[in-house]
Amino acid sequence: MILGTVVGDITSTINHPSCDGRKLLIVDKITPDRRPTGDYLIAIDIADAGAGETVLMIDEGNSARQILRAANAPIRSVIVGIVDDIRVAPEGERP
Amino acid sequence: MILGTVVGDITSTINHPSCDGRKLLIVDKITPDRRPTGDYLIAIDIADAGAGETVLMIDEGNSARQILRAANAPIRSVIVGIVDDIRVAPEGERP
Amino acid sequence: MILGTVVGDITSTINHPSCDGRKLLIVDKITPDRRPTGDYLIAIDIADAGAGETVLMIDEGNSARQILRAANAPIRSVIVGIVDDIRVAPEGERP
Amino acid sequence: MILGTVVGDITSTINHPSCDGRKLLIVDKITPDRRPTGDYLIAIDIADAGAGETVLMIDEGNSARQILRAANAPIRSVIVGIVDDIRVAPEGERP
Amino acid sequence: MILGTVVGDITSTINHPSCDGRKLLIVDKITPDRRPTGDYLIAIDIADAGAGETVLMIDEGNSARQILRAANAPIRSVIVGIVDDIRVAPEGERP
Repeated sequence: MILGTVVGDITSTINHPSCDGRKLLIVDKITPDRRPTGDYLIAIDIADAGAGETVLMIDEGNSARQILRAANAPIRSVIVGIVDDIRVAPEGERP
Repeated sequence: MILGTVVGDITSTINHPSCDGRKLLIVDKITPDRRPTGDYLIAIDIADAGAGETVLMIDEGNSARQILRAANAPIRSVIVGIVDDIRVAPEGERP
Repeated sequence: MILGTVVGDITSTINHPSCDGRKLLIVDKITPDRRPTGDYLIAIDIADAGAGETVLMIDEGNSARQILRAANAPIRSVIVGIVDDIRVAPEGERP
Repeated sequence: MILGTVVGDITSTINHPSCDGRKLLIVDKITPDRRPTGDYLIAIDIADAGAGETVLMIDEGNSARQILRAANAPIRSVIVGIVDDIRVAPEGERP
Repeated sequence: MILGTVVGDITSTINHPSCDGRKLLIVDKITPDRRPTGDYLIAIDIADAGAGETVLMIDEGNSARQILRAANAPIRSVIVGIVDDIRVAPEGERP
């Protein structure tokens, strides 16, 4: 799984009924120190995340379909949780 | 899912009936700020996209096969929608 | 499989029962010479790994689901073992 | 799918009957402008491609197995077509 | 598939019976010109490869499980062959 920050959303027509009404968020991937990496994903949101929130994403089709309970959905990236806390040793103190 | 801009198309013979007559577009991957990343994909188009349009792509085999309703199709990248609007916080205003 | 070092953990709510009570660790990917690569994964831990330990991770959904014996789990990255020893030829002595 | 140029071939023993007698080509990945990217794949050839030819590759296991009609084949990269034409807007003229 | 050179091995406890007694090798990915790329994988060896040998690897879960005939094995990277010969056009002579 990957950490990210919600920075926006997009409006698009996806030609598949399983995606109707789904919110598509733009998520910047971040490091555990919460620094942006310059990489991003467009993810379906099931965690009711808002702009600026730190989220946990999964980027795998079968996982995404399980979460949405839609065996045929053409999706791959899903926001599965809002991150409450990140505890990480400062870089200088890592082994 | 990934954002991209259609910049061209290719003509090729794919040795599989499920791909007969499919349009193969060249899509430059872009950032949410619509800057090109220098990376690209050759994708099958089901959204009737034209050159210069911003599109939403999925790059996963099972999703691609679901969308084309072709359980055996040897494809992985599909243009699933044309992007109507991207709302993203300017980089300086992100958390 | 990939080598990594456990550098922290996160607290998040994942909306799927298969993940209830699972420990989510932050793992820095390392080279065989144990140098950090700057890349990381959030992984579920089944090896009882602690901070600072060198671990073996797998990053594939079907493998992850097999390990957790949860056919529907929306997961992809799992810590599958604690590394006891790495034997690698020094860079200058490689063929 | 990805574009590439055939630059060579390898001889190797793969321990699986589904691969017996298959030609293994070295394919340099290229940009739509036909510039090499420095990245490559070893791919099974079903398009009868020769050295120097521009090809279309797919890099996904299930697609590869469909193409070879070998449900159990341990392969992932296949040359699925020879590219006849690439029509791409010059970089300065893209949107 | 990817080319690599065996540079070492690791000892680790993987919590899954399908991996008991499997040799885990450290493989540096190389270019077709046999230059190291700085990237590596930990792979299960079924080709009886030794340190310094050039090998062909596959990095896909379903392929790996087919090769080991273990439908449930939590593995993704396998050394499938020892490379006997690489024939590649010198960089200056490529099209």
